Amino acid sequence: MQKTALLIIDVQKGFDNPVWGKRNNPEAESNIALLLAAWRKQKLPVIHIRHCSVEPNSPLRPELPGNAFKKEAQPLPNEKQFSKSVNSAFIGTDLEKHLKANDLSSLVIVGLTTDHCVSTSVRMAANLGFDVTLISDATATFERTGHDGVQYSAEDIHKINLVSLNGEFCDVLSTAEVLKDLT
Amino acid sequence: MQKTALLIIDVQKGFDNPVWGKRNNPEAESNIALLLAAWRKQKLPVIHIRHCSVEPNSPLRPELPGNAFKKEAQPLPNEKQFSKSVNSAFIGTDLEKHLKANDLSSLVIVGLTTDHCVSTSVRMAANLGFDVTLISDATATFERTGHDGVQYSAEDIHKINLVSLNGEFCDVLSTAEVLKDLT
Repeated sequence: MQKTALLIIDVQKGFDNPVWGKRNNPEAESNIALLLAAWRKQKLPVIHIRHCSVEPNSPLRPELPGNAFKKEAQPLPNEKQFSKSVNSAFIGTDLEKHLKANDLSSLVIVGLTTDHCVSTSVRMAANLGFDVTLISDATATFERTGHDGVQYSAEDIHKINLVSLNGEFCDVLSTAEVLKDLT
Repeated sequence: MQKTALLIIDVQKGFDNPVWGKRNNPEAESNIALLLAAWRKQKLPVIHIRHCSVEPNSPLRPELPGNAFKKEAQPLPNEKQFSKSVNSAFIGTDLEKHLKANDLSSLVIVGLTTDHCVSTSVRMAANLGFDVTLISDATATFERTGHDGVQYSAEDIHKINLVSLNGEFCDVLSTAEVLKDLT
């Protein structure tokens, strides 16, 4: 486990803004807090990713209060942070270089949102050669309307995005399963 | 449109192998053939991506007959080809360099499979700054079983993966819509 970093993606206050619509899995943040506490207790590496949006109307723009991390995912001074402006945590950042320089070959990934920044970062991490575990109940997403005008629930989008990732890009596990492995 | 390449991902015979399970959208290949013919007629750039699997049991391994392109997506000698061994067409290839060197700022993406190599390549293209259009009826996927043991149909997986991509990473359009814009 010394080679396994906890990668926390975009757990920022701006995602509480009602503009995003209905969300699934309200427990994501408390599960992230449990994982973060366990990683710190075992003195394992933690990496925080912050989205600094360049979209004119995003609550995640760097100058807005929504850019701040939520209380469940506040970094400690010794924990590495990277800021990004696209979905992938690997594009426009030194994340890959940092992982390789520190011999971190595997990642446990949590955060927001399942199908946008989390899925994109999981895919790219796997394709760059890292072993990836994605925590099903420590991520969440929002309802969305398709190009065909059909509305899909946050829970359906979340579930099927996990199905598409599992086995091909990562192992999907629960918070409880990972905490059990860790102790 | 001179700056728009048609990017055809992994339209290879190995995807006819029954090992993949039930597929949706049997019309994908005939729609890809229509788009390819239209791109050629307008003398627009076409790029072919071939998956050369390194998985021991994949029908897409380079030494197997399944590695060959399907008849609907046979490259012409003047069309650019890239081979890859992971999902993203941008990792381990010179695709990004080629697009930038040829001033190709936008991509129309088709191919197999919707939620694995197509979604990953769409996401990375968008995050690298390209304008992306994904053709809903010129891609397809297979049924899959989740980490929870639940089986999801190819059509449900296909639809929800398009929902997660549309607007955030690309515009999702139909073959007919793109052919109408082209002529």
